[in-house]
Amino acid sequence: MRIAELSSRSGTSIPSIKFYLREGLLPAGESTGRNQADYGDTHLYRLRLIRALMDVGKLSVAAAREVLAAVDTPDLPGHSLLGAAAYSIQKPANRNPDDPHWQAARREVLERVRARGWEVDEGVPAVDLAADAVAAYRQLGQEDLLACFDTYLEVCERIAAQEVGLVVARQDAARMVEGVVTGTIIGEVLFNALRRLAQQNASAKLLQ
Amino acid sequence: MRIAELSSRSGTSIPSIKFYLREGLLPAGESTGRNQADYGDTHLYRLRLIRALMDVGKLSVAAAREVLAAVDTPDLPGHSLLGAAAYSIQKPANRNPDDPHWQAARREVLERVRARGWEVDEGVPAVDLAADAVAAYRQLGQEDLLACFDTYLEVCERIAAQEVGLVVARQDAARMVEGVVTGTIIGEVLFNALRRLAQQNASAKLLQ
Repeated sequence: MRIAELSSRSGTSIPSIKFYLREGLLPAGESTGRNQADYGDTHLYRLRLIRALMDVGKLSVAAAREVLAAVDTPDLPGHSLLGAAAYSIQKPANRNPDDPHWQAARREVLERVRARGWEVDEGVPAVDLAADAVAAYRQLGQEDLLACFDTYLEVCERIAAQEVGLVVARQDAARMVEGVVTGTIIGEVLFNALRRLAQQNASAKLLQ
Repeated sequence: MRIAELSSRSGTSIPSIKFYLREGLLPAGESTGRNQADYGDTHLYRLRLIRALMDVGKLSVAAAREVLAAVDTPDLPGHSLLGAAAYSIQKPANRNPDDPHWQAARREVLERVRARGWEVDEGVPAVDLAADAVAAYRQLGQEDLLACFDTYLEVCERIAAQEVGLVVARQDAARMVEGVVTGTIIGEVLFNALRRLAQQNASAKLLQ
């Protein structure tokens, strides 16, 4: 199909499609003449994935490029395939890694996670993000809220087992990596939205 | 204290402090002469809160301003106080609300949430965000991952009861609203980071 049809079928404007092509998120179509190219269903699907990652998941162009590179390399070994999303999708925080409060928070996160028997790579960005949050709670005098930490660990263990189990059940490597990417990023949006609704419900019930 | 001391004690540069003053996030100090002002501990605390919301919670200036306005109005009735964070902190998504697929996803979210007996306001942005995620899963052919939806509901109910319970236990209205804001925004960063670590652990164990 021509770019105009790709645009109308995907609901994405032609300038946006050209931007994704230029940024290397969308592979080029097959050239059919000067300034004309032919696009197929894989382009249509890829456009939907780009928009889900960027519009729903709020990934930056750079983060989307990294995630899509993982999708395009489904022959990674199983574990690194499933780990790819964990590495590539965090925005860098504006933190001072030499701050002793932050370092103490980071040690605390690793200790609590390991005490639960989790195998985690110490270099993964999620460890630093959890440390950011713990350090912020303490600095703001909100450490009573850390009473939720163990509940979070328990609950995360339960949902991760189901999420990873669903993806592994797919067998096909390409479908697995797609599942990791969408399940991690879109699943986070879904979970966070439901948590907000649950908080609204809990406060309505507690305060009525 | 002078602005230079406020800067060194908070670890925030003077240009950033001036930006927060200009944007109305940080209240003005007490004027002590032409181009000089005196700042107190409330300014120091407020600066920490601003940085936690923006650096850790990744809120935009506009979203931080709305959240801080709620912190400054602790005499809201209890329920709207606890609901304030739910309304003010979502980035608008780039969605088409007339898309019948999106509308169907939104109806599905409301039905499932209400089937669980949750009292939620239909106009809250979290309903739309959950619909974005459900619609994206379906459009990408990843609907098998929606098998997690009911687990998410169950788990969210459990963590929200604890989170809201901790905040309500504080009694003091100003401390309650601070707890809502930090617990919702910083707690989300913490939870999402732990979920990523749990996924890494689950895939390490499933694939070894």
